Amino acid sequence: MKKTKLKELLNSLTLEEKIGQLIQLSGEFYNASDISLGPQHKLGITQRMVDLSGSVLNVTGAKEIHRLQQKHLAKKGHAIPLLFMSDIVYGYKTVYPIPLGMGATWNPALVKKAYENAAEEAYAGGQQVAFAPMVDLVHDARWGRVLESTGEDPYLNSCFANAMVSGFQSGLEDGKGIVSCVKHFAAYGAVEGGREYNSADMSISNLFQNYLPSYKAAIQAGAKMVMTSLTTLNGVPATADKWLLNNILRKSWGFDGVVISDYASIYELTQHGFALNDQDAAYKALDAGVDIDMKSPCYANGLKPLLEDGRLSESKIDEATWRVLSLKNDLGLFEDPFRGSSEELENQDLLTSSKRKLARELGRESMVLLKNDNKVLPLKAHSNRKIALIGPYADEQSMLGLWAIHGDTKNTVTFKAGISEYVDTDNLVVEKGTDIIRDKDFFIHSGRDEDRVECVISDAATEKLNHDRAIAAAADADVIIFAGGEHTLQSGEAGSRTKLRLPDNQQELLNELATLGKPIISVIISGRPLVLTDIIADSDAVIEAWFPGIEGGHALADIVFGTYNPSGRLSMSMPYVESQAPIYYNHLSTGRPQKTSQHVGRFVSRYTDAPTGPLFSFGYGLSYGSVIYHKPKIDKTSIKEGESVTLSVAVENSSKIDRTETVQLYFHDEAASVVQPVKRLINFKREIVPAGKTINVVFEVKPKMLGFYNQLGEYIVEPGKFELMVGQNSNETQTVKFYLED
Amino acid sequence: MKKTKLKELLNSLTLEEKIGQLIQLSGEFYNASDISLGPQHKLGITQRMVDLSGSVLNVTGAKEIHRLQQKHLAKKGHAIPLLFMSDIVYGYKTVYPIPLGMGATWNPALVKKAYENAAEEAYAGGQQVAFAPMVDLVHDARWGRVLESTGEDPYLNSCFANAMVSGFQSGLEDGKGIVSCVKHFAAYGAVEGGREYNSADMSISNLFQNYLPSYKAAIQAGAKMVMTSLTTLNGVPATADKWLLNNILRKSWGFDGVVISDYASIYELTQHGFALNDQDAAYKALDAGVDIDMKSPCYANGLKPLLEDGRLSESKIDEATWRVLSLKNDLGLFEDPFRGSSEELENQDLLTSSKRKLARELGRESMVLLKNDNKVLPLKAHSNRKIALIGPYADEQSMLGLWAIHGDTKNTVTFKAGISEYVDTDNLVVEKGTDIIRDKDFFIHSGRDEDRVECVISDAATEKLNHDRAIAAAADADVIIFAGGEHTLQSGEAGSRTKLRLPDNQQELLNELATLGKPIISVIISGRPLVLTDIIADSDAVIEAWFPGIEGGHALADIVFGTYNPSGRLSMSMPYVESQAPIYYNHLSTGRPQKTSQHVGRFVSRYTDAPTGPLFSFGYGLSYGSVIYHKPKIDKTSIKEGESVTLSVAVENSSKIDRTETVQLYFHDEAASVVQPVKRLINFKREIVPAGKTINVVFEVKPKMLGFYNQLGEYIVEPGKFELMVGQNSNETQTVKFYLED
Repeated sequence: MKKTKLKELLNSLTLEEKIGQLIQLSGEFYNASDISLGPQHKLGITQRMVDLSGSVLNVTGAKEIHRLQQKHLAKKGHAIPLLFMSDIVYGYKTVYPIPLGMGATWNPALVKKAYENAAEEAYAGGQQVAFAPMVDLVHDARWGRVLESTGEDPYLNSCFANAMVSGFQSGLEDGKGIVSCVKHFAAYGAVEGGREYNSADMSISNLFQNYLPSYKAAIQAGAKMVMTSLTTLNGVPATADKWLLNNILRKSWGFDGVVISDYASIYELTQHGFALNDQDAAYKALDAGVDIDMKSPCYANGLKPLLEDGRLSESKIDEATWRVLSLKNDLGLFEDPFRGSSEELENQDLLTSSKRKLARELGRESMVLLKNDNKVLPLKAHSNRKIALIGPYADEQSMLGLWAIHGDTKNTVTFKAGISEYVDTDNLVVEKGTDIIRDKDFFIHSGRDEDRVECVISDAATEKLNHDRAIAAAADADVIIFAGGEHTLQSGEAGSRTKLRLPDNQQELLNELATLGKPIISVIISGRPLVLTDIIADSDAVIEAWFPGIEGGHALADIVFGTYNPSGRLSMSMPYVESQAPIYYNHLSTGRPQKTSQHVGRFVSRYTDAPTGPLFSFGYGLSYGSVIYHKPKIDKTSIKEGESVTLSVAVENSSKIDRTETVQLYFHDEAASVVQPVKRLINFKREIVPAGKTINVVFEVKPKMLGFYNQLGEYIVEPGKFELMVGQNSNETQTVKFYLED
Repeated sequence: MKKTKLKELLNSLTLEEKIGQLIQLSGEFYNASDISLGPQHKLGITQRMVDLSGSVLNVTGAKEIHRLQQKHLAKKGHAIPLLFMSDIVYGYKTVYPIPLGMGATWNPALVKKAYENAAEEAYAGGQQVAFAPMVDLVHDARWGRVLESTGEDPYLNSCFANAMVSGFQSGLEDGKGIVSCVKHFAAYGAVEGGREYNSADMSISNLFQNYLPSYKAAIQAGAKMVMTSLTTLNGVPATADKWLLNNILRKSWGFDGVVISDYASIYELTQHGFALNDQDAAYKALDAGVDIDMKSPCYANGLKPLLEDGRLSESKIDEATWRVLSLKNDLGLFEDPFRGSSEELENQDLLTSSKRKLARELGRESMVLLKNDNKVLPLKAHSNRKIALIGPYADEQSMLGLWAIHGDTKNTVTFKAGISEYVDTDNLVVEKGTDIIRDKDFFIHSGRDEDRVECVISDAATEKLNHDRAIAAAADADVIIFAGGEHTLQSGEAGSRTKLRLPDNQQELLNELATLGKPIISVIISGRPLVLTDIIADSDAVIEAWFPGIEGGHALADIVFGTYNPSGRLSMSMPYVESQAPIYYNHLSTGRPQKTSQHVGRFVSRYTDAPTGPLFSFGYGLSYGSVIYHKPKIDKTSIKEGESVTLSVAVENSSKIDRTETVQLYFHDEAASVVQPVKRLINFKREIVPAGKTINVVFEVKPKMLGFYNQLGEYIVEPGKFELMVGQNSNETQTVKFYLED
């Protein structure tokens, strides 16, 4: 539809019809199956407003979409097609590793492909908007939603934000693909204490330097929608933050797409103590720049009275409606309200072998080898050694993580299935050993969703049997693979925890296995960096496998048997103990640093009873074989504006196996008018270093890369002395210095 | 000296002499005994600058002061007397409970007396400035310096800031008393993760609402000096923060006194990456408004070259020098450089019985009764019941806390000594049971100061003997008093911890005592709110005794035997588990609160595996007897600007013992343009409620008390609906509502 015609449509709409476009409801309102995850409460919305509503949340499948759209268009009125939006966070039917695992790949190009694939599947299933990527920067593993984030670094997160948005939207020009709705704007990841839905509070400099870059990257990559955060930032709920939505997002970044609230977050403005009531909430959200009200009665019931009271002008509603109509028009919905989705397409495009292949690749690239003493890994395929695969994740399909809401665990390749392909039947014994979790109260308190997540607690006799069989099998084996980790319900949204360990019953099993004196390879499933201190102590090798997606079993087996040389590098620090939180590598310099201080004795910045640093730092991960980073060189020791400095480092593979090196470049501004992080990532290169070869990795550093944001949110580059640090991870780097001249 | 004459003196000084006034060094530079606590490093200051220096840190005692002052004045030059300043944080020779304990008294009037006493003692000992009060608001028990704070509430902290400053300075008009140097400006208490010397980062609204009020209260109470914080606030080291020191402190608050850096904090500007070198650091600190450089070479070596380079104008140095000279003059040092201090005065005024009496009163008012099941407390004095007093603090004099640097533990009344006065010899057995801490590494890592803090680790045989004797004694007793807690070195400056429990050996002893089936009264010594979850479970009664000062034994005994009805109320939340940090009662409202939400199931603001709230809330504490808070009443349900609402609540003592009630008044602004805390303390009244009587407690609430700070740091009162909540603690309140009209 041409813009002029669309304008005519807008002008022809009644107020009620316009308001309808600003409302998003979930399936239950349309007698459709509903997989929404969020608090449920009665909305008090009339059927009339439901009939006029503009978009639908989390109803999927070509058949169902066709049914709803047809029914909707058959209603009297303007017959504006519904927009179908959905939580497609890390895959639709083909579920990939959780985003925190994707972060550990340091491979945005591959991640982009995964999001292209997800878009292709979702498109077939009648979806037009994905509520993703979630690009919230995270510093605190207590927060359950770190699962959905790519980690703690603004630069790395921005690379992934770009990849994910580009992936989702790459088909749009051909009438395919889906719209990416970046979330949660802004700074949801900074909730205090890692407590879900808590407040975020920070300086403007911190906001601009750390939290905003990934949203900005998503907008620059073309994201056509933005979702607000459920939380407050500096005392203002993001859903009603005019400064954020108007000054930053629209004016400063030039965003002209649709802004949607998060689930019920307009309604929650009253709970926040920011709005007096639903109507006041509707005013404040719309006035701030929120176009669509997701799953709340505020716009549906509040906008008309606000207009009648003269508090709101119709032009404000027109603006928002225009944005929604434009998005529908951009997607071609007026020409084809089904956008070509069909059951035939679903049969053709969902869960294809090429998509599964990508899930396997991404799975193995996401896994991080944390420990590998005495080269216990890789194991030799089809050897005579007996392997005992023990633990509740040994043969468990439910390892997709909480937010894979469109996935089906039945499609998951288990660890057993994957490993079986490398081991002769006689040499593999698989025993569960214990349940994932044995605390009934946990399931009651964690809001068990009976249909989606299995919550098995074995009876005492079965548990004892499982235990005894596991110990017997392990005792009889040459090597033990222990597969344990978090229950799906322990992480993800509203999965905040104070204790970040394996459930006690699993840790006890592992402790017992450790007494057998066999080599132990521990594989950990989790939606967050757990505290692995005890597991590291008990194991010879440890692989962090995250929730690895539907090809998890193949991915793990490829690593365990060396078909794939592990390349994952942490994108979030792994704490040594829970109460280190928040912990991250790029913290500001202190006046009494522990390492370099001239101070002796007590008076340095640290904890007295635990390491001040994490158990494993940002960027950390092992591979098979060995590598030497030679001394880095720079071409100049002093540059001016307009010039650049080139750093090169020779990376030598001193082993007989190819490996992928993620060469990481950090910098530090030695003195600045805003105190700077001890180090900051500015670039990385992920390169294959063939066995026995040396490659030269080159980085160009320009002055504009060396700036920071001040307390006005302005980006500044200050001349002075800079350190460039290059290495395998944030903790093991070599430094060269240069001057940026005045 | 008249101002005109003082001006002449200033004008007659050489540049070098002026700079000298801006330098503070510690005793070692004057061949004096030195009790400074801080990182030690070579300063590279010439003897000439030492000779010209203006003030001395932590050298005490009339004799030593006379010797130094005489020697100093005998030097050639202008013979400007030295100013002697010292860390007198919670007492000089008569050591009171730590400030966190003082906070729990909710009795600023009594605390003021303690600071008057401290001033009298310090004056006799030749001190002119106390580096106190420390008024940093604290939210995180991991930080060791919570010991020096009165707690987590801006209003309560402000009351104590006023009391402490007034107490120190009340003698000044009569030529006595000492100058109060409030610290650490600003927001040191917000160091992230509770890691010592770490960064603080927050919104302007949060800064003004929570962190600045107590400093402002100290200035309004007349504090003549301010010490900067060692830390950064929003990326700027406080020691070079012109906005803080000039715009807020001097211009907005009208402070015209002396600003001093914290220990070496100008020097540390370079470590922070805020200054290029010592000279740049000197420029930035002086330019920001720091008059005196404590224990660093920056001013001594840097100011002259800065002047010669033309970067700094002499008028800047003159300003700072003028402030220092004015302070000396205000103290009358030009007339009497010794301010009357003498050994005779020391003999007369130190550790007098009246001062000890006050320490006893303050000690018992600071202790908080946390649990008292089955009225196990109070015990009957001189009864026939056998008491076993067990634990490393049973007969330990070292319970003054880390920052009582002028106190002598030999003056401490131990628990044994105190309790002995209430129990016949035959009925009291005292056994140590175990050492305070048995980890050698701890003492190595915590910067043991051999001269000040005893670090005994018994050999294995002695430890076994101690253990066996304790268990035998306990088994033979009718009631057990367990006295355990933190080692002095575990809290205080640079005492950040991730684990906030009793040392394992103590917890094990307590666990074993708990198996004996006797009533157990646990008394906990600590410099912070420990995680008492396990102790509460093991004990019938629990008394938090903090580091209770030199009269600790008497204070405890008075409570245990009911001579004093415990009245302490927590001024800082006690966490349920370490990884709840930061945790405090007055957090901002969320959109999905756990208690009142209409949301069911998973999606509320909380932890899934632990209580979201603390073990014991702000304001909590038990007393003997019982009390009923009747329904509060207000005289109006709607008021206008200029009016006030009066709330009254009848408090009935339904028992046969007098008790002190601290009636606490909180409020909540139901909707505001900056999201407000769930509740905020605005007033409290500490009243004696005689046995069987009812008293009526009345609060007047004025509109100006109901405001908040916005992101510009402006104080705003918004009309609307308010809740007033009155009760015994922050968690148990009754609510009345009223409107503030537009």
